[in-house]
Amino acid sequence: MYRLSLNTATCQHLSLAEAVTAATGLGIEAIGPWRDRVQEIGATEAGKLIAAAGLRVSTLCRGGFISSAEADQVERSLADNRQAIDEAASLGAAELVMVVGGLPRSFAAMGRPNGPADAEDRDLAAARQRVADRIGELVPYARERGVRLALEPMHPLFAADRGVLSTLAQALDIAADHSSDEVGVVVDSYHVWWDPALKESIARAGAESRISSYQICDWVLPLARDTLNSRGMMGDGYIDFRQISAWVSQAGYRGDVEVEIFNEDVWEQEASLTISTMKQRYDSLVAPYL
Amino acid sequence: MYRLSLNTATCQHLSLAEAVTAATGLGIEAIGPWRDRVQEIGATEAGKLIAAAGLRVSTLCRGGFISSAEADQVERSLADNRQAIDEAASLGAAELVMVVGGLPRSFAAMGRPNGPADAEDRDLAAARQRVADRIGELVPYARERGVRLALEPMHPLFAADRGVLSTLAQALDIAADHSSDEVGVVVDSYHVWWDPALKESIARAGAESRISSYQICDWVLPLARDTLNSRGMMGDGYIDFRQISAWVSQAGYRGDVEVEIFNEDVWEQEASLTISTMKQRYDSLVAPYL
Repeated sequence: MYRLSLNTATCQHLSLAEAVTAATGLGIEAIGPWRDRVQEIGATEAGKLIAAAGLRVSTLCRGGFISSAEADQVERSLADNRQAIDEAASLGAAELVMVVGGLPRSFAAMGRPNGPADAEDRDLAAARQRVADRIGELVPYARERGVRLALEPMHPLFAADRGVLSTLAQALDIAADHSSDEVGVVVDSYHVWWDPALKESIARAGAESRISSYQICDWVLPLARDTLNSRGMMGDGYIDFRQISAWVSQAGYRGDVEVEIFNEDVWEQEASLTISTMKQRYDSLVAPYL
Repeated sequence: MYRLSLNTATCQHLSLAEAVTAATGLGIEAIGPWRDRVQEIGATEAGKLIAAAGLRVSTLCRGGFISSAEADQVERSLADNRQAIDEAASLGAAELVMVVGGLPRSFAAMGRPNGPADAEDRDLAAARQRVADRIGELVPYARERGVRLALEPMHPLFAADRGVLSTLAQALDIAADHSSDEVGVVVDSYHVWWDPALKESIARAGAESRISSYQICDWVLPLARDTLNSRGMMGDGYIDFRQISAWVSQAGYRGDVEVEIFNEDVWEQEASLTISTMKQRYDSLVAPYL
């Protein structure tokens, strides 16, 4: 099994059908679609399209943004997440990546409809507790549909505005309230590479059967103007993929390795160049250590 | 005792004498100078100037950049740090802030002279171990001069290029090889606010008598083009100063609270406006919880 998976964010301008064609043409065997690409044709059709091409679905990206303290927003986000779970089930995705959301104070800045009632709310511990509570509310719905909620700790760069889960250990602590087939964690190299406890946390994630996905891309500097789009191609930055890949392997993870790159320079290239580069870098920098 | 201290980086364009005058004029009782401002008149003169104005020296910023693997660079950085220790002693600064440096791969990007022999060196664990080793080599020199080395964990945003110490717990683990009057840690709100283990780590730092300095400024978004200059005025961003200040106080810290703001918009203002704003924000957002 060739474990490299193309996350559709890496080829931002391709439709799902185009991404599937490009991936299969270059020998890729798995794909991790974002919901926007899935929704363009509907999840059932998307699942058929991917299956017909002989590809595995590594994850569906993404659910989440469940950190609000406002009843209306909580209801809307739960409804959206139930829809994401349905899409994952229809698509045949066993893992739904969850980006949990930031502090209420950031919602207006993020352009989310209807900012928080309390724009001064900076209580990180409370936001983290709400995330744990919302996960608890979504688990039964996801379990019935055979979908695992994959908590993605995010780089602390994004703690204010995108994800209040900041370490793998913290995600594992939240996951611990649920069985390992209900809640997992994502090991995304970009988000966790700096963590002094990374080796131990990956080992723990493996021992607890929680690794939902190993996602890769590189930490490159300087950051892009829109920091979200700073993710770089493996080998272009500072991450030691040999070390992290070995830890993930030693933890027993045998699933797909998804390349997810948000980067305007990468998006401007021909998709075929991006995918062939990604394959080359995966083959030389990652696969030998898995 | 009024615990607010003006770090000279906050008024980037003032000489030390100007900063001292501006601070005392607005009722500030302490100052935390950077070495460039001290070196302009010499550490002994700088110490006299500050003492004559009746100000305390909260810290000297900074030593560090001790993560290199190259023998020549190690020698140069040790020599520079011994000089910083001498300056701290002459100035009357009991705490020397240490920003430990990034990965060798970043040195060229940072404009440091003579890049690393191995520009592909991404080994974070090894860089962290070298930092611990260099601290061990500097401790006897610092102890003899009555200067404590204050390890500053930096936001993981800077792990690649500025500071491979990423959490307070990690800094405390390195400090643990030395007595509490030899090696301390800096609690800088900007660098540590996101840490899920922050409450426990601050309590531990207090219990181990390691808190060298409580530095404050806010996490504001978007980041500046030069990310180093993204530090904001307290109250303008996402940090819950009530919570963190209370933890620092509960940990037994009774020293100065240094405001260190790297921010081009702040630097463009009149220094008197910056200092009076800083005082107002400290009085309302920080001091009540100390």
